[in-house]
Amino acid sequence: MTRADIATARARIAADVRHTPLLRVQGQAFGIDCAELWLKLEHLQLGGSFKARGMFNRMRSQPIPPAGVVIASGGNAGIAVACAAKALGVRCEVFVPEVCSPAKQAKLAQLGAHVTVGGKGYAEALQSSLQRQQQSGALLMHAYDQPEVVAGAGTLASEVEDEVGLPDRALVSVGGGGLIAGIAAWFENRCPVEALEPVLAPTLHRARAEGGPVDVDVAGIAADSLGARRIGAIPWRVAQQHVASSHVLDDAAIRAAQLALWTELRLAVEPAAELGIAALITRTIVPASDEKVLLVICGANLNPASLEP
Amino acid sequence: MTRADIATARARIAADVRHTPLLRVQGQAFGIDCAELWLKLEHLQLGGSFKARGMFNRMRSQPIPPAGVVIASGGNAGIAVACAAKALGVRCEVFVPEVCSPAKQAKLAQLGAHVTVGGKGYAEALQSSLQRQQQSGALLMHAYDQPEVVAGAGTLASEVEDEVGLPDRALVSVGGGGLIAGIAAWFENRCPVEALEPVLAPTLHRARAEGGPVDVDVAGIAADSLGARRIGAIPWRVAQQHVASSHVLDDAAIRAAQLALWTELRLAVEPAAELGIAALITRTIVPASDEKVLLVICGANLNPASLEP
Repeated sequence: MTRADIATARARIAADVRHTPLLRVQGQAFGIDCAELWLKLEHLQLGGSFKARGMFNRMRSQPIPPAGVVIASGGNAGIAVACAAKALGVRCEVFVPEVCSPAKQAKLAQLGAHVTVGGKGYAEALQSSLQRQQQSGALLMHAYDQPEVVAGAGTLASEVEDEVGLPDRALVSVGGGGLIAGIAAWFENRCPVEALEPVLAPTLHRARAEGGPVDVDVAGIAADSLGARRIGAIPWRVAQQHVASSHVLDDAAIRAAQLALWTELRLAVEPAAELGIAALITRTIVPASDEKVLLVICGANLNPASLEP
Repeated sequence: MTRADIATARARIAADVRHTPLLRVQGQAFGIDCAELWLKLEHLQLGGSFKARGMFNRMRSQPIPPAGVVIASGGNAGIAVACAAKALGVRCEVFVPEVCSPAKQAKLAQLGAHVTVGGKGYAEALQSSLQRQQQSGALLMHAYDQPEVVAGAGTLASEVEDEVGLPDRALVSVGGGGLIAGIAAWFENRCPVEALEPVLAPTLHRARAEGGPVDVDVAGIAADSLGARRIGAIPWRVAQQHVASSHVLDDAAIRAAQLALWTELRLAVEPAAELGIAALITRTIVPASDEKVLLVICGANLNPASLEP
């Protein structure tokens, strides 16, 4: 995974995805002593999360068989694949776990995806999707562990650098690790990229402690989008080279950050998108007073009523 | 009101307010046949609306007496004055009408404002604030009918032009008219600026029909922020010169646009900010297919639970 891969991805998907805006605010708005927060508003991306970048990149760079594409996902990745497939006129199958709410299934169907409940949890849905792929010959899409998907995520860091230059530090949430791998591969240690995870879903944190990817239990407020059970193999390799440090945050801090972002900035975003603010508010990470800190507001698949305190 | 006034205002308040981001999306996202929608995300401004621009501009350009500033407002203008006063270390009194909710009064108090219930409706609160101003000598702030306030609002159009050039058309909501007057004064007929109002709060539309400002009844979904009873004198003069046309929209269209903006773009914004999308969806305004249409997302003082369909 190189910067050239990401530059290629960016050119390839330029007409498909949104160049999302960057909001610059003083750290002071959140009682944080740093020069500026750069919020990359990636929840305004097609499908409501950064995932569309990787999915378009894979679908634009691989031949797509008549059977189309298939993925196992009950969340943002499934929505992103369905959006991309719809835009490109491609058949799309999504295998969801039983826990996937009827509302989310309806949203996928509305985007034209064929939705199948593929088993109790994500692991079973994944198995069903793999079986189906072998029958149909469809292009298999993965939520985070494919090179095109990681390179696609990296394009957002390239946009930020073009617009305002290098940040002094980048804070990125981690589930399966596709987002942070793309961003870290782009910045290539030219600024520290720091990994943030819920204490209840610590895939990278545990992998670092154990010396390699391991399965972890996942639960808590952000499990809906950061609920991968294991860091991806590609993200793990990139993270070992280019991620400076790894931190965990408890659910109370994530929830407090969610309310603060809504109250101060009118950003209605999902818990996974709050970890950067949570790390700064709790002083888990303390930037210098002249720093410009990049936060990736990665998604907004939430129930807006949950923003009531 | 000239472009030079607005350029001066922009330089004066540059360090006080946020340069808000511009989101560019294909019209197609809303089933609209135009090249691009440019959404100026002014709800991410300090205080949650564009009003901070005008309030900082007035407070930065007038001497501020020891008694500070005073305004009558139960909404975005009051919050903006309180934010600006807090940032500048100035005393601030806000006279609110009885209908102003305890939550909004608490928010004003939290920002350090001295809050007084000044009578039943806005007219009574305004009288109380004027009496108070005569006793105290405080600087009187107006929500829309002062030159510095109008020039401040115009700075957002200047930001857009610097960033991406002239739009082919600008759609702007009207209450008292401060926002559209600032924007129209900046664009100076170099592109058409069109006025949008709820059919239940048509201050400019009625003024155009009658040949001059008249009092109108105000009600409906957007009355909270577009509830001025009469177009301002300054906005009226500017609008006569520089506003191309005026349209009204019913509450059902505004509500449908609110849900569409949330569903498609994850923008949680107030009804007043939806009129541009509503005008396009209902084909009240039909742009050419190669047009770039500027919409001002003017505020986000809403209850997020109201976004549930």
